[in-house]
Amino acid sequence: MTVMHDLPTIDDIRRAAERIRPYVHRTPVMTCESLNHMARAFLFFKCENFQKAGAFKMRGAANAVFSLPQNVAARGVATHSSGNHAAALSLAATLRGIEAYIVMPHNSPKVKQAAVKGYGGRITFCEPTLQAREDTLADVVDQTGAIFIPPYNHPDIIAGQGTAALELIEDTPVLDAIIAPVGGGGLMSGTALAAQSLSPGIMVYGAEPEMADDAYRSLKTGILQPSVNPKTVADGLKTSLGELNFEIIRNHVDGIATVSEESIIHAMRLIWERMKIIVEPSCAVPLAALLERKLDVAGKKVGIILSGGNVDLERLPWMG
Amino acid sequence: MTVMHDLPTIDDIRRAAERIRPYVHRTPVMTCESLNHMARAFLFFKCENFQKAGAFKMRGAANAVFSLPQNVAARGVATHSSGNHAAALSLAATLRGIEAYIVMPHNSPKVKQAAVKGYGGRITFCEPTLQAREDTLADVVDQTGAIFIPPYNHPDIIAGQGTAALELIEDTPVLDAIIAPVGGGGLMSGTALAAQSLSPGIMVYGAEPEMADDAYRSLKTGILQPSVNPKTVADGLKTSLGELNFEIIRNHVDGIATVSEESIIHAMRLIWERMKIIVEPSCAVPLAALLERKLDVAGKKVGIILSGGNVDLERLPWMG
Repeated sequence: MTVMHDLPTIDDIRRAAERIRPYVHRTPVMTCESLNHMARAFLFFKCENFQKAGAFKMRGAANAVFSLPQNVAARGVATHSSGNHAAALSLAATLRGIEAYIVMPHNSPKVKQAAVKGYGGRITFCEPTLQAREDTLADVVDQTGAIFIPPYNHPDIIAGQGTAALELIEDTPVLDAIIAPVGGGGLMSGTALAAQSLSPGIMVYGAEPEMADDAYRSLKTGILQPSVNPKTVADGLKTSLGELNFEIIRNHVDGIATVSEESIIHAMRLIWERMKIIVEPSCAVPLAALLERKLDVAGKKVGIILSGGNVDLERLPWMG
Repeated sequence: MTVMHDLPTIDDIRRAAERIRPYVHRTPVMTCESLNHMARAFLFFKCENFQKAGAFKMRGAANAVFSLPQNVAARGVATHSSGNHAAALSLAATLRGIEAYIVMPHNSPKVKQAAVKGYGGRITFCEPTLQAREDTLADVVDQTGAIFIPPYNHPDIIAGQGTAALELIEDTPVLDAIIAPVGGGGLMSGTALAAQSLSPGIMVYGAEPEMADDAYRSLKTGILQPSVNPKTVADGLKTSLGELNFEIIRNHVDGIATVSEESIIHAMRLIWERMKIIVEPSCAVPLAALLERKLDVAGKKVGIILSGGNVDLERLPWMG
């Protein structure tokens, strides 16, 4: 089933910001002299790792959940995800007082299952295949009447994710460039819409693992190119670009840099060591692009969206 | 050699704040709903883990270094330490354009040696005994004419450390209580002086590992009791209380709670997981005291000084 949607605009992002204000944190913008020195630029980090449920995903989920008319919302919301979207949707639903039905592979990490349960989500387990996830989700929606809230390919999600860049630009109006990591493209497309509307002339870049470079290839060829079984430490960026997201990225993103796995791990560790904050590997991809000199921002003021902070503290990527 | 000093006052802390303003960060105060819930209180964390050189020690070191008359400062400063004070003194000296001579045991962790060198300190290695450290320091001072800046038992250090509580109370004037970890007592004594002067009626507590409970025993008996070879994961709290520090703590601290090693590790991990910030084990001791219900602050507004964020990221305390 393909549903055509209007693309969101800056007004949708502004409305989203108003709508979700009671339910999300206005996260701080941090700076770090030693990382500025290494990147040869002035970096402004928007700390969505401090967001509720630990990632920017809360913005889109809250916007989608609180945009539903009451009679629709009452039936609950549903999604299939084992990551940050599932936790965020569970929390947003709980805040609205409705059910969130989450379809997860039965082999999902226990910590992710616990997060969903902790935020009040109801889990239905399935086999760990995309087909099983989609079939199980269809069953759940059939049985409950819940509304499917996709993780990125939806205007309300995109508008919600765009509120992070909106706040960053409000707090730091001097930016010459802004960089976001690209997975499904929800954050990237929302960031691009917000940045180009609020800061005309700003350069908007994406950053992606070489091992999951579907957005890079899609932008280069002009045709949406999926990732096939990508393997990268940046687990939040394995998903392939959505259609709406690609449409926006094609029109509003100036370039996408790709980076190596070693470089992602190195940049992640630098953020931990120098900034003393916990970020997940996906967060480190934009900084990795700067340290690899893949983007020409020397001497410029650069906003970076740190997407989330949900990591397995038992085992860190730099541990052999 | 014992030198008698006047005890510092709130005016010294205010002057220290002015003096060090160009050289330190005004660190943020963070809150966390889930930790509030667990602690059954409203917690306000003063994030000295984000301080320059990664710990509150920069405040005292900068105050001591920038308090020196120019002709004295020109000879440089010296200390024996393998921890945060050495790194902070090195950075403060570099900022003033003078030398810092640091005596360290030759078996100090490479990461700590690198930090001192990175901030411009000049290391003299010695055998890993207190006698060797003191003898080597005396030699260095003899040869260079540098001024010994002790890590905690000094009025300028105490006044500098007190600026963290000063800022916390300026930013959060509603506190009912304030808690700091206790090692040598520099942070605790500065915190107590600042808090009781600025917020009359505030309760001031210390928190200490059971395995290094010299302040608890000293306060209880009224006589300064050293720790003998303490073994605790909170490596910043192994040092025994200084004389000046004890004098202040005896008069201005309402109580000291002690906590188990398990409890420190658990609290540290909670701060990492829930607040997404990197803190060293010493930081977690006050929260551990609240989770162990060792301090009666139910429903109260409680300030907690997070002392630093310098940890070995290769190996975390909860890893078996």
